[in-house]
Amino acid sequence: MDNRLFFFDTTLRDGEQVPGCQLNTVEKIQVAKQLESLGVDVIEAGFPISSPGDFNSVIEISKAVTWPTICALTRAVQKDIDVAADALKYAKRKRIHTGIGTSDPHIKYKFNSNREEIIERAVAAVKYAKKFVEDVEFYAEDAGRTENEYLARVVQAVVDAGATVVNIPDTTGYCLPQEYGEKIKYLMEHVDGLSAGRAILSTHCHNDLGMATANTISGVLNGARQVEVTINGIGERAGNTSLEEVAMIFRCHKHLGIQSNINTQKIYSSSRMVSSLMNMPVQPNKAIVGRNAFAHSSGIHQDGVLKNVQTYEIIDPHDVGIDDNAIVLTARSGRAALKHRLSVLGVEMSQERLDKVYADFLVLADKKKEIHDDDILMLAGADRATNHFIKLESLQVTSGKGVRPVASIELSIAGEHFEAAASGNGPVDAAIKALKKIIDRQMTLKEFTIQAISKGSDDVGKVHMQVEYDNILYYGFGANTDIITASVEAYIDCINKFKK
Amino acid sequence: MDNRLFFFDTTLRDGEQVPGCQLNTVEKIQVAKQLESLGVDVIEAGFPISSPGDFNSVIEISKAVTWPTICALTRAVQKDIDVAADALKYAKRKRIHTGIGTSDPHIKYKFNSNREEIIERAVAAVKYAKKFVEDVEFYAEDAGRTENEYLARVVQAVVDAGATVVNIPDTTGYCLPQEYGEKIKYLMEHVDGLSAGRAILSTHCHNDLGMATANTISGVLNGARQVEVTINGIGERAGNTSLEEVAMIFRCHKHLGIQSNINTQKIYSSSRMVSSLMNMPVQPNKAIVGRNAFAHSSGIHQDGVLKNVQTYEIIDPHDVGIDDNAIVLTARSGRAALKHRLSVLGVEMSQERLDKVYADFLVLADKKKEIHDDDILMLAGADRATNHFIKLESLQVTSGKGVRPVASIELSIAGEHFEAAASGNGPVDAAIKALKKIIDRQMTLKEFTIQAISKGSDDVGKVHMQVEYDNILYYGFGANTDIITASVEAYIDCINKFKK
Repeated sequence: MDNRLFFFDTTLRDGEQVPGCQLNTVEKIQVAKQLESLGVDVIEAGFPISSPGDFNSVIEISKAVTWPTICALTRAVQKDIDVAADALKYAKRKRIHTGIGTSDPHIKYKFNSNREEIIERAVAAVKYAKKFVEDVEFYAEDAGRTENEYLARVVQAVVDAGATVVNIPDTTGYCLPQEYGEKIKYLMEHVDGLSAGRAILSTHCHNDLGMATANTISGVLNGARQVEVTINGIGERAGNTSLEEVAMIFRCHKHLGIQSNINTQKIYSSSRMVSSLMNMPVQPNKAIVGRNAFAHSSGIHQDGVLKNVQTYEIIDPHDVGIDDNAIVLTARSGRAALKHRLSVLGVEMSQERLDKVYADFLVLADKKKEIHDDDILMLAGADRATNHFIKLESLQVTSGKGVRPVASIELSIAGEHFEAAASGNGPVDAAIKALKKIIDRQMTLKEFTIQAISKGSDDVGKVHMQVEYDNILYYGFGANTDIITASVEAYIDCINKFKK
Repeated sequence: MDNRLFFFDTTLRDGEQVPGCQLNTVEKIQVAKQLESLGVDVIEAGFPISSPGDFNSVIEISKAVTWPTICALTRAVQKDIDVAADALKYAKRKRIHTGIGTSDPHIKYKFNSNREEIIERAVAAVKYAKKFVEDVEFYAEDAGRTENEYLARVVQAVVDAGATVVNIPDTTGYCLPQEYGEKIKYLMEHVDGLSAGRAILSTHCHNDLGMATANTISGVLNGARQVEVTINGIGERAGNTSLEEVAMIFRCHKHLGIQSNINTQKIYSSSRMVSSLMNMPVQPNKAIVGRNAFAHSSGIHQDGVLKNVQTYEIIDPHDVGIDDNAIVLTARSGRAALKHRLSVLGVEMSQERLDKVYADFLVLADKKKEIHDDDILMLAGADRATNHFIKLESLQVTSGKGVRPVASIELSIAGEHFEAAASGNGPVDAAIKALKKIIDRQMTLKEFTIQAISKGSDDVGKVHMQVEYDNILYYGFGANTDIITASVEAYIDCINKFKK
């Protein structure tokens, strides 16, 4: 059996559907190009029928990347497949990922159907997709809770219908490694054509019980040859399998003989990019990419590490691309240095856009001495905040200890000028109260996160917020060296998205 | 074989040694009492010889809790064991946890010794500990990389010497589940007395490859009957096994027949308390306790969930104690309500201390309408900031958009009054520059995190910082409804800890 393992990254599909993680098309292209340099084999770029934004992203990602296969998700429905095929028209290598729920709860409650009808619908979807593309992947949703004997019949039917990859998702994150491995083993032994390589099995595991990576490894050791993963393990609920964990396990355990195309030295920059663009913090104790992942603290350990690094460390931080001497840009850095750094970070842009980002870079570099990768990524993504209905013209806030916080604000709304002032319990509270004097709607701040996880008091603060209005949650983002200004900009970002 | 699984929590020992996670004795007692109500069997309370603080914490935790066994860590050294036995004198149930490295790299590089001598030292340590306590646990450090045959000889020797528990740590986080499970199985089969229950094996797994929970489960399924875990999986590098993941796996997979004493409904409050007191954020996609762990977002899933909760969810959020209708206190809440809520959160305090916390509570409740559990925990822990050399007397900061940030500050240093003003790139930068005009030392801000992950702009902001001075990193914390004030207080907290 071939030991080449294919990495299928679904950061841009399963990861991106998490509230607050939504990316615009420009940001998705940045991530896709980073995934290409990281060496992933397949990029799941979206679910084209779900929204015009997803449709457009699949088109633009198809144009932007060269080597990875671009994959589009569908349900087992002709219209979905038509739209996916259309979205994939510019892809150099393309795949349609179609499927249907196969567990009893899905068959009964979601489809109000029966086992035989589900097999018919699965086969019909695969055959229909084959009219458009050669490479068709089928997912048996909730396979983790599907009885093995019936699942083998489904897999046999779709392989016979032409599926090249069959995805066995543990949709609820319920399986334990041995059970999931046995499922894969059962399929390998009972479906004709799998061991001969006519089609391969894929893992797709969720982390609800903390088992996603372990289940994935168990799947591969039992014969699966594709893994569906995300950067930092992001995804719905407790997330998906982490790309970085699977990649480093096979790198550290070479005796398992599993080969892949992943360039592990791009792991850290990929992690930082996704965390930054999706505003999704990585906890300090996250395996491989957490801030503390390579930090030793206890006396006993420090002693051991000093005596011999091999005593405690099994992963060389350089293998995942952590470079203590990372280049830092300053106000004296030229356009070429910025362009080079952007390209190292996976961001390519037109000359015109580079000019604009460089101008913003100089403004920021003037305020703070050292510009880090996070700042550069923020600048590269920051031009989305244009053409907004409501704009912050000026803000002045006074607060402190022994001072009643007070704020005055000037807004331009559709070109017209407004101003107000208010006091509050803190500087952000005062500023938002002033804002609300101008924009008089029943809106409630539901989530408020300031991300200043960085070095130096002159660093850029990032604020994300969720504001509820008319029973809908809106997500907003702001970034500024002044965290109070960033907070107000995030609030205005939310309001600008209100549907009425 | 008995299917009762013992939970050994090392949040206060292996978790607490992470930089920035240090707790004072009062906070450790809060966590210990919470662990008691959560139902853990053993609390590892510290490493008494490592510092007077650890020694004292073991004494105070021993006095404060009733049911769990209190465990103290030592090296295989008589002096360590003497000190541990002394620290445990008030414990109702007590255990000494001693051990030594058994892998070739440890034997060779750390101890410059040989295999036979290591066994002699192990046996001597266990026998010495038995003079003080009946319950002695032995750890074979780096057992994950110790050859099974030699490891079995070590385990046999310490069991014969009287060890009641033998801990098999995967110190480097290198093992895969099958390998770790086979190691436990090998020991169960080759060491006399284990299957008869004369001693039990314990798992202690690290998460460097994301395998800690999976290895732990594999260990239990192969015969281990104690698991060493931490709340939220905190710990050195990528952390330890998460208590909540192991507990929920055995709860969701009842067919495995493993019983424990864990009251899962206390999981969420334990997670919040540890995250809050240790200032260690939990990432949104963390299994069981992350903010998104039970959030559904994609259209397909929402539809499924609406049709039948069982389609997608396997864990009922109420099982882990997530209660959407959590009691919220207000300015009209009495002292009894506060005391009750503190007790639900695992915090008990003297009448005198309660009076002080209640006074602070009224001040805070006056500023913000709703007081949440996080606020209460913050108030309960906030009285540590007394008797400090440097105090913030007043602070006034003005910033915004189109405004050059400026700050004026008044400090009292050992009773003497100082003041200064400065401008900066943002409000925090300006305030810290003003502070530095008064305190003229070569200090560098290395980490700066603002935690405002909460609801409402009038919420309390929490700031943690690391400041480097004279090549030592100092950790500081501040909390205030004004995040600028909280930032300056965190900086001053660092300076107050400077050693010269």
